[in-house]
Amino acid sequence: MKKDDEKDYTLLDMFLENPGQFLSGEEISRRLSISRTAVWKQINKLRQAGYDFEAVPRMGYRMTDAPDQLRAEELIAGLSSEQFGRNVVILESTTSTQEEARLLAEQGAAEGTLVISEEQTGGRGRMGRKFHSPRGKGIWMSLILRPEQPLHLTQQLTLLTGVAVCRGIQKATGIQTDIKWPNDLLLSGKKVCGILLESAAEDDRVRYCIAGIGISVNLKEEDFPEELRPIATSLRLAGGQALNRTVLIQHIMYEMEVLYKLYNEQGFQAIASLWEALSGTIQREVKVQSQRGVVTGVAIGLNPSGALLVKVDGDIVPVYSGDVEFHTR
Amino acid sequence: MKKDDEKDYTLLDMFLENPGQFLSGEEISRRLSISRTAVWKQINKLRQAGYDFEAVPRMGYRMTDAPDQLRAEELIAGLSSEQFGRNVVILESTTSTQEEARLLAEQGAAEGTLVISEEQTGGRGRMGRKFHSPRGKGIWMSLILRPEQPLHLTQQLTLLTGVAVCRGIQKATGIQTDIKWPNDLLLSGKKVCGILLESAAEDDRVRYCIAGIGISVNLKEEDFPEELRPIATSLRLAGGQALNRTVLIQHIMYEMEVLYKLYNEQGFQAIASLWEALSGTIQREVKVQSQRGVVTGVAIGLNPSGALLVKVDGDIVPVYSGDVEFHTR
Repeated sequence: MKKDDEKDYTLLDMFLENPGQFLSGEEISRRLSISRTAVWKQINKLRQAGYDFEAVPRMGYRMTDAPDQLRAEELIAGLSSEQFGRNVVILESTTSTQEEARLLAEQGAAEGTLVISEEQTGGRGRMGRKFHSPRGKGIWMSLILRPEQPLHLTQQLTLLTGVAVCRGIQKATGIQTDIKWPNDLLLSGKKVCGILLESAAEDDRVRYCIAGIGISVNLKEEDFPEELRPIATSLRLAGGQALNRTVLIQHIMYEMEVLYKLYNEQGFQAIASLWEALSGTIQREVKVQSQRGVVTGVAIGLNPSGALLVKVDGDIVPVYSGDVEFHTR
Repeated sequence: MKKDDEKDYTLLDMFLENPGQFLSGEEISRRLSISRTAVWKQINKLRQAGYDFEAVPRMGYRMTDAPDQLRAEELIAGLSSEQFGRNVVILESTTSTQEEARLLAEQGAAEGTLVISEEQTGGRGRMGRKFHSPRGKGIWMSLILRPEQPLHLTQQLTLLTGVAVCRGIQKATGIQTDIKWPNDLLLSGKKVCGILLESAAEDDRVRYCIAGIGISVNLKEEDFPEELRPIATSLRLAGGQALNRTVLIQHIMYEMEVLYKLYNEQGFQAIASLWEALSGTIQREVKVQSQRGVVTGVAIGLNPSGALLVKVDGDIVPVYSGDVEFHTR
């Protein structure tokens, strides 16, 4: 494995050193001391990793597109946050960044530690659902938080994360997403980002939380499985161009840190106001499937714990968890 | 290791088959085909495991005390609960039964799965404190729960566990303990049992809880480290005689299951009433060290979430987590 990888990098280096130029198979074969067949195999491997090549007879290969590769030094160098994201682990592939972050948290990793993976092979969404996380196309990451607050207020951090990601996307790309309660981000009604806040507690004391953030950044239509196409989209599909993931992560880390400080200093009210302003859920007719049954009514805001307040006939019902469907009469 | 253990059991069997009788070193040596020195070594190993022997020159060894060994078949055979404790793992030694149960829960173990260890080498109490769990002397166990309730109500399960253990001890032994908020059990002001409810959640949805229960059953004064002696006691020290741990566990599993069903069907109010009746905290002057500071006043009851209500001057303050000290003017 190791030896193959080293050869890949050398082939890649040749193209990176000669941007826009054709390199003949013969030249590559000679310089890397590998067969012509091996050159062709390695080109295909790079294609699978997200690189594109034009192949022209008697001219050779020219690199036409390179993937947006996440690199820790580059990410850290551009961070505006003081702590969040500065301790960062970037993986090529993992089952789930939530699991990786949980192991780190159990081992005592500091608040603000960030785990990113280019690909998740078993990405998880809410309620045990799968989360589609193809290689190099999105931001699949998990941030460790160690809030000094009782467990029963954890829902507030879920909402805070939604606000921070929404603002980070807006600042990095100009794209304005809607927050759907509790924490999906939508573009024209299609999901572009999922958030999953997992927590571990002793009695009412939070040991740590892990904010899982999955953003479909540069996926094209064909990168989504067919069943997701009617309900999912990406920032690229909405904005028309590929976006720099590093810059997006930097903005999100900054927004997370700023809002988290605000929350710790001033409490939930400021976050709730931001959430209500950014949410596409408020003042709409909703049908919520919760653990305690179905609630249908008009969403009117958040209660002080972060529950969604739904006006049902004359009553106001707090909903703590569940799935929202928008209701049209 | 395996071979040694087998020899131990054979030596043990010889004594168990001849209760109250002396067995000469020579006879043991002959029947087990081991040297006299090996006999002496194995007797010492059994002593370390909690057995006692009288050694008389020219008579040999006589077993005078055998530890109360937990055995899964015996435990299950006497259970009155339908589900709780029927799937049971009994370990000789582990770092922490909480960790063992957490691994099982992550792998999908069913509600009611119970992990017991004869000894914990890294037993944990609340807020990262150590929990003294010497071999064979207590009940060190963890029960997996999968409640269908939102995360912010988890504190209620902490209180439920306290009530169940208090009632189980009472029914199995006649000893009446006091519940100190949130979930220590006391005898004459000294701690006899600690409870730690750990939970894992996604957003506001509980994935599982692990109720950790540590009861100092048969510890003698000298089994406690010196620093714990002024503040800790055991059921044996209070009642004057060694108690059967299997019967205690059976009663606790039954009480847990009955109260848990009651709670799922009727909500927290019934549990809160039982808790208030059994608690030594209500109507006392308390000083609570919580994450948000110190609260001093009179404990008057529980709020609907399970927080302790403390009357401070004219105000009633809910306390969600912390350490209670009783206050005497």
